[in-house]
Amino acid sequence: MAKKAFPLSKVYSLLEPGPVVLITVSGRQGMDVMTQSWHTMMEFEPPLVGCVISGRNYSFDILRKTRECVISIPTVELSSQVVGCGNTSGELINKFEAFGLTPQPASKVCAPLIAECYANLECKVADSRMVNKYNFFILEVVKAWTNPAIKNPRTLHHCGMGRFMVAGKPFKLPSKAK
Amino acid sequence: MAKKAFPLSKVYSLLEPGPVVLITVSGRQGMDVMTQSWHTMMEFEPPLVGCVISGRNYSFDILRKTRECVISIPTVELSSQVVGCGNTSGELINKFEAFGLTPQPASKVCAPLIAECYANLECKVADSRMVNKYNFFILEVVKAWTNPAIKNPRTLHHCGMGRFMVAGKPFKLPSKAK
Repeated sequence: MAKKAFPLSKVYSLLEPGPVVLITVSGRQGMDVMTQSWHTMMEFEPPLVGCVISGRNYSFDILRKTRECVISIPTVELSSQVVGCGNTSGELINKFEAFGLTPQPASKVCAPLIAECYANLECKVADSRMVNKYNFFILEVVKAWTNPAIKNPRTLHHCGMGRFMVAGKPFKLPSKAK
Repeated sequence: MAKKAFPLSKVYSLLEPGPVVLITVSGRQGMDVMTQSWHTMMEFEPPLVGCVISGRNYSFDILRKTRECVISIPTVELSSQVVGCGNTSGELINKFEAFGLTPQPASKVCAPLIAECYANLECKVADSRMVNKYNFFILEVVKAWTNPAIKNPRTLHHCGMGRFMVAGKPFKLPSKAK
């Protein structure tokens, strides 16, 4: 992946529209990657992302122990990989090999970037107080990368029960929002 | 609005793709409505929604006191109203009148539904422990409504700085996810 550092102050613009993401972790058991849609921005800078990772996921224990992960944002070209990672468990298979995803070393965390994804956000757990009750991790994005070759990324958005939609054309409105 | 009760067990399918929403509240000061994109599903059933509402918003105090709100999901036809509600403050104007949004009585909360929105979720605050530190409210959806006339709602998704995209065509993938 031709990757370029992306300003932390603009990370919200990647996650705010609600894309399906892949989350990677790396522990003593090896690496894992899971598919996820339950996340929200919580602060602009440093960027905080709240994120539900169920205790049923193989990644859960690794994230809890290492307190590090990468949020990778795939585009529609990776649909089959996204669905594959969601339908299987890292307890049984190596998902990177099974689905042809290429792990790349990150700069600040032990979890890998995914070379095929257009954006990769290196994260550390900033607050785990809501994990026991809600499986809710508050992550701080400590380094962000995007692939400068991809101008209008067509992200995937899950609408339940295997129905997805693809991000449509971007357009401007006279919003004063950040 | 021709509104039809929507099963609470499927509410996640409305919010998971990350639409821009309008949030209404109603207190002694009157009603207010604000534009919001920082939300995530946290549980399927009863549906829990985590949601950041900054203390800078006029709605914040009303929500904190009444512990009730409605999450309304607009479609692209309401773009100018969505941007208008985001650019202004309920402290200065009545946004329902200013932008031609029609409040309708909800069934279980004091905050109003918005007749023009294709979905309306009546919510009560379930957990406010993260409000002081993160402005993060955990809401339980206690009643949900959709407009059965709208089959493929073209929701808005904010990409920062007034850039939006519209939900594209839905399609199926062989996901085993809920």
